[in-house]
Amino acid sequence: MAGNTFGKLFTVTTFGESHGIAIGGIIDGCPPGLELCEADLQGDLDRRKPGTSRYTTARREEDEVKILSGVFEGKTTGTSIGLLINNTDQRSNDYSKIKDTFRPGHADYTYQQKYGLRDYRGGGRSSARETAIRVAAGGVAKKYLKQQHGIEIHGYLSQLGPIKVETVDHSVTNTNAFFCPDASKIDALDAYMRDLKKQGDSIGAKVSVVATNMPVGLGEPIFDRLDADLAHAMMGINAVKGVEVGDGFATVEQKGSEHRDALTPEGFASNRSGGVLGGISTGQDLVVHMALKPTSSISVPGETIDIHGKSAEVITKGRHDPCVGIRAVPIAEAMMALVVMDHLLRDRAQNADVHCTTPVIPAQAGPR
Amino acid sequence: MAGNTFGKLFTVTTFGESHGIAIGGIIDGCPPGLELCEADLQGDLDRRKPGTSRYTTARREEDEVKILSGVFEGKTTGTSIGLLINNTDQRSNDYSKIKDTFRPGHADYTYQQKYGLRDYRGGGRSSARETAIRVAAGGVAKKYLKQQHGIEIHGYLSQLGPIKVETVDHSVTNTNAFFCPDASKIDALDAYMRDLKKQGDSIGAKVSVVATNMPVGLGEPIFDRLDADLAHAMMGINAVKGVEVGDGFATVEQKGSEHRDALTPEGFASNRSGGVLGGISTGQDLVVHMALKPTSSISVPGETIDIHGKSAEVITKGRHDPCVGIRAVPIAEAMMALVVMDHLLRDRAQNADVHCTTPVIPAQAGPR
Amino acid sequence: MAGNTFGKLFTVTTFGESHGIAIGGIIDGCPPGLELCEADLQGDLDRRKPGTSRYTTARREEDEVKILSGVFEGKTTGTSIGLLINNTDQRSNDYSKIKDTFRPGHADYTYQQKYGLRDYRGGGRSSARETAIRVAAGGVAKKYLKQQHGIEIHGYLSQLGPIKVETVDHSVTNTNAFFCPDASKIDALDAYMRDLKKQGDSIGAKVSVVATNMPVGLGEPIFDRLDADLAHAMMGINAVKGVEVGDGFATVEQKGSEHRDALTPEGFASNRSGGVLGGISTGQDLVVHMALKPTSSISVPGETIDIHGKSAEVITKGRHDPCVGIRAVPIAEAMMALVVMDHLLRDRAQNADVHCTTPVIPAQAGPR
Amino acid sequence: MAGNTFGKLFTVTTFGESHGIAIGGIIDGCPPGLELCEADLQGDLDRRKPGTSRYTTARREEDEVKILSGVFEGKTTGTSIGLLINNTDQRSNDYSKIKDTFRPGHADYTYQQKYGLRDYRGGGRSSARETAIRVAAGGVAKKYLKQQHGIEIHGYLSQLGPIKVETVDHSVTNTNAFFCPDASKIDALDAYMRDLKKQGDSIGAKVSVVATNMPVGLGEPIFDRLDADLAHAMMGINAVKGVEVGDGFATVEQKGSEHRDALTPEGFASNRSGGVLGGISTGQDLVVHMALKPTSSISVPGETIDIHGKSAEVITKGRHDPCVGIRAVPIAEAMMALVVMDHLLRDRAQNADVHCTTPVIPAQAGPR
Repeated sequence: MAGNTFGKLFTVTTFGESHGIAIGGIIDGCPPGLELCEADLQGDLDRRKPGTSRYTTARREEDEVKILSGVFEGKTTGTSIGLLINNTDQRSNDYSKIKDTFRPGHADYTYQQKYGLRDYRGGGRSSARETAIRVAAGGVAKKYLKQQHGIEIHGYLSQLGPIKVETVDHSVTNTNAFFCPDASKIDALDAYMRDLKKQGDSIGAKVSVVATNMPVGLGEPIFDRLDADLAHAMMGINAVKGVEVGDGFATVEQKGSEHRDALTPEGFASNRSGGVLGGISTGQDLVVHMALKPTSSISVPGETIDIHGKSAEVITKGRHDPCVGIRAVPIAEAMMALVVMDHLLRDRAQNADVHCTTPVIPAQAGPR
Repeated sequence: MAGNTFGKLFTVTTFGESHGIAIGGIIDGCPPGLELCEADLQGDLDRRKPGTSRYTTARREEDEVKILSGVFEGKTTGTSIGLLINNTDQRSNDYSKIKDTFRPGHADYTYQQKYGLRDYRGGGRSSARETAIRVAAGGVAKKYLKQQHGIEIHGYLSQLGPIKVETVDHSVTNTNAFFCPDASKIDALDAYMRDLKKQGDSIGAKVSVVATNMPVGLGEPIFDRLDADLAHAMMGINAVKGVEVGDGFATVEQKGSEHRDALTPEGFASNRSGGVLGGISTGQDLVVHMALKPTSSISVPGETIDIHGKSAEVITKGRHDPCVGIRAVPIAEAMMALVVMDHLLRDRAQNADVHCTTPVIPAQAGPR
Repeated sequence: MAGNTFGKLFTVTTFGESHGIAIGGIIDGCPPGLELCEADLQGDLDRRKPGTSRYTTARREEDEVKILSGVFEGKTTGTSIGLLINNTDQRSNDYSKIKDTFRPGHADYTYQQKYGLRDYRGGGRSSARETAIRVAAGGVAKKYLKQQHGIEIHGYLSQLGPIKVETVDHSVTNTNAFFCPDASKIDALDAYMRDLKKQGDSIGAKVSVVATNMPVGLGEPIFDRLDADLAHAMMGINAVKGVEVGDGFATVEQKGSEHRDALTPEGFASNRSGGVLGGISTGQDLVVHMALKPTSSISVPGETIDIHGKSAEVITKGRHDPCVGIRAVPIAEAMMALVVMDHLLRDRAQNADVHCTTPVIPAQAGPR
Repeated sequence: MAGNTFGKLFTVTTFGESHGIAIGGIIDGCPPGLELCEADLQGDLDRRKPGTSRYTTARREEDEVKILSGVFEGKTTGTSIGLLINNTDQRSNDYSKIKDTFRPGHADYTYQQKYGLRDYRGGGRSSARETAIRVAAGGVAKKYLKQQHGIEIHGYLSQLGPIKVETVDHSVTNTNAFFCPDASKIDALDAYMRDLKKQGDSIGAKVSVVATNMPVGLGEPIFDRLDADLAHAMMGINAVKGVEVGDGFATVEQKGSEHRDALTPEGFASNRSGGVLGGISTGQDLVVHMALKPTSSISVPGETIDIHGKSAEVITKGRHDPCVGIRAVPIAEAMMALVVMDHLLRDRAQNADVHCTTPVIPAQAGPR
């Protein structure tokens, strides 16, 4: 049960390896009547694309997406939407050396053991390239959420190695190669990354995503909670090792009297919950943070074994991101869009009859 | 789509509110031939049960589980297993005051908005009581994993408020009311909790779970990764606000040369990955940490609104845990067992033909 | 993947064997706010119950259903609904003889081979007793469909052995032990069954189910078509060997000019399609027929083998239906209700925004 | 929840309309290590392709399938397999007349009502063209089943209008344009079809599929029974209105003493069950029959309405099959392969530990 489908009502199924003919996917469950064209999706694909700045990998991936079905006369028809991105820049010869050796920190060893064989070119299916389709699919969800419900989703880099963002200004995020929302940190990031490249090493990062204008009531109380599904989505992004909702690990040292967000007729007085209570959205901003490990594709030599179990040394040459966390920003946005979209449809299915007489309080809340 | 089912091949579906007639569940997909009786499940249920110590709620929940089907002559038959626990100690009158008021930090407001009505007695479906069935179902998975594959799962409290565990000795964990694996911290925990009760306040906690003797190859590469499914499982436990696999958020400040676990013919040299690479188990110990927020059921007065949107004050009286994180230990173990079991069956379905010629390296690794 | 769950958005998961402690199930996805109590479900359970007439098995099954959760102050809450029926009349000693022998036409042999063991008492999980929970769950769907959408579902016996029903009057169906909608056939059925009992043999039957007042637009175009899901539901009822929608097998000899139902401003001119075009409901009556094989639990001796593969003779003694098809009527109604309910929620999820400007034409149509 | 995915462990998700850019699909869950190339799939695609004989539509559909992923160095890798077939022969101008009119017997009206809009070119998603991807995906399953388990699947035309096949010789089936397994009927079929074309009318058909060399034990006891899933699969093929397993509707008039297949040490004495008991395969041949309605795309004028609800007359011009049932033969084979494959993996997941001590009896049985 290979698990290449995400979502239950608004589903995305993907295929493709970094060095195959193409990558692609199918969106199923998209409501009909949504105006949609390739240009709606290309913007986020370009944001995700490596080679955009000198800090991300120099590979040129022409992530040009084609919509193959499910759109007629400019509108979605309610049938499945086929997405395709051809692979163009494949230098397979770069990878001949890693064929018989497992790179530490990579999926090489686990793929080999699980399947008995692996497509070793460019990481095969474990390559971040697959996420391009998630970004495209998330773009469809984003457009629907914005247009029908005013929901907006913004991601940003909140920490890179020791450098922590201090202010969040979404208008700054897309003006720099780091998706950094704090203009005062850009020079420091630039210097840090320059230094890192010299070392041939890589660094971890923290990425945050926020959905604003959320409706109340999305998420199921048990198991498929909104926060649980977000955790699944984010932990499923390559290199992610931790996920927080709202105050996350800081709650370990919080007291109950301090943590709870007071409800007032004017709105929630704070947003420590991150917009979820009992697995269900509160209407506050939905706030998720995630930790991304440093990539293991580095030129610092490492100790490993080969496919026969013998000791070996490995150096990953080629074009690699020193911080994969940066490029995760549009991916994390896409995954949040997919989760919110899925739960919007799920809620609609079961609760279309509900007309709650309790007034919805505003989302306004203190900063976080 | 109410989402009360967990898992894809080894599934658990639950029902029941804290103040209804009974809670229960159905396990589907259990392999036949497993010796099973109620006693196999009761031990973990008793560990989870409130009222066991003076630090957890004084409610007496007689969590006596009955197996209603799926077992014949002491062995599982391969058909669905019905589980039932009657609710016995229900003092509904305790809850009359919260009928018209939303407790801050609780699911009251979100349930009301989502469904237009709610069972306000004892939190209804959002009560932690529902987790008893997860613990029972996890017990079945635990038994199978141990007996057929030698896999063992151990949870423990790793932090409570400011008090951090420094050593992990699984033989200590079940000797104290805190599931604390570090004997040197028990007095401090005791003093802290005593003080907290006087304040009428609550505190957050960090809980860890480790699976040992893991096979290589469990987990799917995309979306339904082993780590992603663990994140889903753990974030779905009441009060959990953050989940880490392996080094988790510490990776944000790690370099690639530092993070990657070297492979040697004698085994992995460390376990920073937490036992997962590319979404697939490595054979190392599977290590997950989670943050649990402090419960909002406290006697410190709080600001809120009533169902008409008017300002109100709330004090939660009654019998409540000052630290819900403690009781989460057996629940987290159960959820890990369910995830590992599910992926074991999933892997078996697709990869039964695989006979990998690469030797499996031992799991031995540095501490963490 | 044991498959004990039916439906995707309105799901029913069942457990229980005929000779265990209890049978039960969980409904997930029921909309909140539906008035519901046990009495709503008991009527159909009593219709299904054996021992109601002298033509069905003389076993007394007290199918008294209890609702254990999901209903508060008389209304569904949107959480999962636990259903339980205790097993009371279990004469296990009746079954000692079949322990080591496979009854021809039964599931004995296939269960033994699949699972390596089986609960041989009363057919275990393959007993028709499990269908009681489907009937109860279908009752919830029936109530919702009727109350919110005016949809009604009527089943009836359309043929028993050589005796074919000629007129369908739903008001007659429940006045006789055969669920026969044609008063003129009741005496013939009575005589036929009396004779059959003397022979110790059994007979097949054809059962039909019709949903009236159907909305247009339920069902998905591909794979999960409304007709395909009905076929899955009906073929999943014990003993069913064939399913037809609308004209069914008669279409093999029809010409296109004869088969197509003309659309007129006053409505469809006929209903050969059975209310489904392209997998989607047309608004016409939804019409399904099914064939049920004669039960193999008969006192006529039969040739078989034992669990060691040796020749043996088998005679099924005890209390068995000479025509299991009769009792399938309320089960088939329940399954149709579950399918229609599921697709209603599915359609709502995806197509809530749709406001089609094409007028809906009436369902009126010629008979069939 | 648009339902474009088939299967649970071996899944196929499809996209594409007849007049879009391409159709395609994703196979998920294919075991690794299977030798696979396009040529393995092309044979069945060519059998399905219209324009192969003068009796099927004259459209030239170049069903050339491309495998875009999931295969490396000639073997499946265990990752998802992307399939693509470009649409080449699209004469969109043929369809301008039906834009505003609903063809009786087509999905035009139901799509319009469900989605509020429709791709009217060539039936859009309801076109039989989508089935090409099912055939390709079924080809992968067929290859695995044959190679790993010796299972073979053969379909054939068993009736066309009044002409019934009397003998079944699989070596004859693929030698004629009708997939007729009875050489003595080919002239009659030829004459009948010639006559039908002159009339501008169409005719229904009956198609049968048989799997030989089946293992015992595939299928789940409840809901997801092997027969139920076959019914779902077959009823989901365009134009299918009825499905039978084994003796099907003939069982209505059978007695129990006549219907049950005796078990003997030499094998089953007959195969009235069609190879399924209690939802689980017996090891006998798996036998399914289905009825396909005559297509409504005929040149005989018909009564209908337009999108404004006004009376209209419709004549379908263009290139259409007078008997769509014929081309369903490879589709039905593919669907059976998908169902058997899915249940093989499902059984493996749950029952890998089972070592039944009861001997498996041979499948040999009397004809049917």
